[in-house]
Amino acid sequence: MQVTDLPPQASLPDWLRAVIKPPAAASRRRRVTVEAVDGVNVRVDGDTLLNFAGNDYLGLAGDRALRDAATAGIERWGVGGAASHLLSGHTRAHEAAEAHAAAWLGFERALLFSSGYLANLAAVTALAGRGATLYADRLNHACLNDAARLSGARLRRYQHGDLDTLEQWLAADTSPQKWVLTDAVFSMDGDIARLDRLLDLCRRHDAMLLVDDAHGFGVLGDGRGSLHEPAFARHVFASGGADPRVILMVTLGKAAGAAGALLLGAGPVIEAVVQRGRSYIYTTALPPLLAEAAVAALGRLADAECADRRHRLLAKASEVRQSLGRAGLACGLAGAAAEHASGSPALPATPIVPVIVGPDAGAVEAMAALRRAGLWVPAIRPPTVPAGTARLRVSLSAGHSEQDTDRLITALKELFCNG
Amino acid sequence: MQVTDLPPQASLPDWLRAVIKPPAAASRRRRVTVEAVDGVNVRVDGDTLLNFAGNDYLGLAGDRALRDAATAGIERWGVGGAASHLLSGHTRAHEAAEAHAAAWLGFERALLFSSGYLANLAAVTALAGRGATLYADRLNHACLNDAARLSGARLRRYQHGDLDTLEQWLAADTSPQKWVLTDAVFSMDGDIARLDRLLDLCRRHDAMLLVDDAHGFGVLGDGRGSLHEPAFARHVFASGGADPRVILMVTLGKAAGAAGALLLGAGPVIEAVVQRGRSYIYTTALPPLLAEAAVAALGRLADAECADRRHRLLAKASEVRQSLGRAGLACGLAGAAAEHASGSPALPATPIVPVIVGPDAGAVEAMAALRRAGLWVPAIRPPTVPAGTARLRVSLSAGHSEQDTDRLITALKELFCNG
Repeated sequence: MQVTDLPPQASLPDWLRAVIKPPAAASRRRRVTVEAVDGVNVRVDGDTLLNFAGNDYLGLAGDRALRDAATAGIERWGVGGAASHLLSGHTRAHEAAEAHAAAWLGFERALLFSSGYLANLAAVTALAGRGATLYADRLNHACLNDAARLSGARLRRYQHGDLDTLEQWLAADTSPQKWVLTDAVFSMDGDIARLDRLLDLCRRHDAMLLVDDAHGFGVLGDGRGSLHEPAFARHVFASGGADPRVILMVTLGKAAGAAGALLLGAGPVIEAVVQRGRSYIYTTALPPLLAEAAVAALGRLADAECADRRHRLLAKASEVRQSLGRAGLACGLAGAAAEHASGSPALPATPIVPVIVGPDAGAVEAMAALRRAGLWVPAIRPPTVPAGTARLRVSLSAGHSEQDTDRLITALKELFCNG
Repeated sequence: MQVTDLPPQASLPDWLRAVIKPPAAASRRRRVTVEAVDGVNVRVDGDTLLNFAGNDYLGLAGDRALRDAATAGIERWGVGGAASHLLSGHTRAHEAAEAHAAAWLGFERALLFSSGYLANLAAVTALAGRGATLYADRLNHACLNDAARLSGARLRRYQHGDLDTLEQWLAADTSPQKWVLTDAVFSMDGDIARLDRLLDLCRRHDAMLLVDDAHGFGVLGDGRGSLHEPAFARHVFASGGADPRVILMVTLGKAAGAAGALLLGAGPVIEAVVQRGRSYIYTTALPPLLAEAAVAALGRLADAECADRRHRLLAKASEVRQSLGRAGLACGLAGAAAEHASGSPALPATPIVPVIVGPDAGAVEAMAALRRAGLWVPAIRPPTVPAGTARLRVSLSAGHSEQDTDRLITALKELFCNG
């Protein structure tokens, strides 16, 4: 075969145009440029707005200690990662961050990744074979579902928080390889999984538990995340270190203010991910400068000043939730009285406060109205959330003042409660 | 159900121990800490060795312009990305890097990712539906295969470089959605795909072409990568900009010396990835500081000083290949006389030079012997490469002196040619 000099067909194939036809305007995702003006204000396409859309819960993304560590990291290592971990990309900076995280979080070993998505993919595909069954909460983050699909294992998704059904399924499952995959803090609802009950189920039915604590790490459990909430810690860390059944994924790009992610677990489990996790092996290592920033972030999360920010944040989250609840606004699942009545342990309110609107268009209109009022609150629509539950997703930060949250509450009441 | 206070079972489930049993010593991946001493020397577990294991082909990972841009980026943006692109993580720094890359590389639009793995996953899963058939070279990088599997589309893998079979398959395929996925430079072999023939096949059979140029970007095509090699560019860029059938993925963490990756293509194609690429939507944006470093890296790759490094690197690669070839060492597929006899266009030698050993143990022993001689050259074994083709993978850098490559060649000859 010789290459022919065909005239260029400077257009997309028709079949591809049909496949990628733009979504209807109402469900179109809108990508805008956003940049920080100061701690909680952002400039969005030219307008300065109060930001309720970030994951920088403690205001650490701009923290001086992190900046200094990253800047020193640049001088020491340069910018690039420049190789995969198993060739020549694994440095003492990675070692230090992994050792620090493992010790602080109570696990035998930790592994750094460039993103939580890659970490979950590596964990599930390396450990859960085709003979396994994976049980997953229906509201888990997208990347846990993608990891499950890529693993080739059987996936069964239970209704959000329906642990009675999960228990029935686990009891009826005679296959030896059982996994439960769960978010700790559900990212679009802000409620917390019953990690105590989940671990108990895993122990009794000989299953492994993978916990994605992207939104709890740094915020809950004195900064160490959801598993360290007292209600859960006495189960998970009953013998000092973490129960080896538990694998934990935490991201460093949210409350920790840095970037990347960590996978934590028993030594042999993490070693198996090193040996066979394709999204660990076949990717360039996190730049060492970010491993240096990770160490600084872990230090900040453990210090007294951050503890203070955390207390203020959680108190604020509770107040906002209560105010909105009193105004009759549905703050998602975490506010459901039913759950508190059923013997849930005492858990803090998380900084993610959904205001359920229902129809997609309603959520988009509400977002636009809030923007006109100077507030940046994203509308979240299907398929990110279940059909009919489009919502505003309020994300609070320690940097928000009482005046800031008052503005938000007033605007939401005006929108939904007819003044 | 109440949580019972079972005694902790402080051990892994037996079934998991069986699943993750450590691989035999011979096939065990060894992760060591490596750190740069200077441009081409690394300290590996205490020993200072000449590094032939990196992807920092041009020595840009430690470049002053990149360091300065990243440091200024830290002052401007802080360390963290702090949100996903569609909530509040997309900044003017990302916009600038994307616009710069698109213009320089001749595509309508570019999209930044935290890693090439996430970029390929997003492209394939967003664009290739269940009705599609994906044709892939057997030696493609692992992440293209994972992307194909995750997409749910049908995957057919052709023998490495066997475009005649590919043509037969494409001609016989009556489904409307056809894709060809290929590495541009094959990462473990260092040979270059016939991108001219592949594009021609895609045009004639109405298929789309996704090119992963992780190892060609920065090195080939005057820095713009494999598609810009003259032998290919007159096909791909016949009408000025890139043929809309082509989607390109380049990584920024190898020759570019930074971190992250870019996906490039026609405007509507990239917009579809923004709208539905799960590994784009559901992940934290690349930290803006790295977007600033990306702009600096693109600038460096286009400058005269880097052009000089590139010429030296490619000349060196050619010399090393020829020296090893004259010594009777099999330098992988790129050195095969057969290919050059069949009318291949003039293409440079790439800086990846495999020395095929065959048995796994032989490659591992050779690596150990080279280490004793002060050289860090990784042994690559199955499943990363096909069974029976374990090899030493030499990766050259512009920073290697003639003395450095002489040391390498001498050591390899001593090992394999009985002195």
